[in-house]
Amino acid sequence: MNYEVEQKFRLADPDRIATWLAARGVALEPAVLQVDEYFAHPARDFAATDEALRIRSVGEQNWVTYKGPKIDASTKTRRELELPIEPGQAGAARFAELLTALGFSHVAAVRKRRRTATVPFQGCDVEVAVDNVEGVGQFCELEISADAAGLDAARAALAALAAEFGLTENERRSYLELLLERRP
Amino acid sequence: MNYEVEQKFRLADPDRIATWLAARGVALEPAVLQVDEYFAHPARDFAATDEALRIRSVGEQNWVTYKGPKIDASTKTRRELELPIEPGQAGAARFAELLTALGFSHVAAVRKRRRTATVPFQGCDVEVAVDNVEGVGQFCELEISADAAGLDAARAALAALAAEFGLTENERRSYLELLLERRP
Repeated sequence: MNYEVEQKFRLADPDRIATWLAARGVALEPAVLQVDEYFAHPARDFAATDEALRIRSVGEQNWVTYKGPKIDASTKTRRELELPIEPGQAGAARFAELLTALGFSHVAAVRKRRRTATVPFQGCDVEVAVDNVEGVGQFCELEISADAAGLDAARAALAALAAEFGLTENERRSYLELLLERRP
Repeated sequence: MNYEVEQKFRLADPDRIATWLAARGVALEPAVLQVDEYFAHPARDFAATDEALRIRSVGEQNWVTYKGPKIDASTKTRRELELPIEPGQAGAARFAELLTALGFSHVAAVRKRRRTATVPFQGCDVEVAVDNVEGVGQFCELEISADAAGLDAARAALAALAAEFGLTENERRSYLELLLERRP
């Protein structure tokens, strides 16, 4: 099984990251709009079980993503299943119709503009994402894919890169949780 | 919303159907193996609610199919959602893993060799399927897609074609139900 070792931080200074990357010849990709439609389970309280199910749309492409509970206290390491589904607005709508027929219910949409880069660091390939999340704020996510044997090295690399970026305000709540907390 | 108006019959004489079709210039396609993996819902008893969820594999292609409850007493008219998913054995396995993570559980596999034809009849396009179902027997399914306004005409055409084919032993149980009833 593969795990994503991931940490997210509130971001005060996006330029510092871009500058650090540029000094190593890495540029952030242009921003893409990601729309994540989250669903509630018919019998489980995902907020209590720390799971999530969403349909992600980026341009014409769609995926269904399941995230399992976090498996440690400091990072966001968790099981993740992400499968491509039919493309286009119609494809996303049909999958949402399937989920609804099965008793899942739509909770909220998280919309963000994301710039990404991949940077080799301490022997790991680190996915860097700089996110501007509608109604929530700016964040940086760092992520490394690892199998069980590589988890400790991935966690160490991630902490060291966060220090390089000046990231200190760790945020374990999901964008969905942050968005729902802001609702009146 | 579209409905499938569908009836299934136990089949004593497959040759009669092939002969009737041949007299009208229609041939049954060569047999294809369909494997349907059925899943139980985490909170609903699909046997009681008359719903079904399955992954269908035909060669390299896969679909996820949801069938809603039957909406009348004699035919098998019901809501159906069928969406393509990732192809190949790996694609079907990944979708099964997603369903399992969400609390669905595997029930049984229905394996059948199906020969099909489409025949115009009384203004409807009728899908004819001649099925040899492992462990269950031989059947003929007749199906017409209709919207709400076309349901009555579709039901009448279906009954008339069944009479032409000499089909009398209507079977409302699904192949899954028939298979499960035969288990010790």
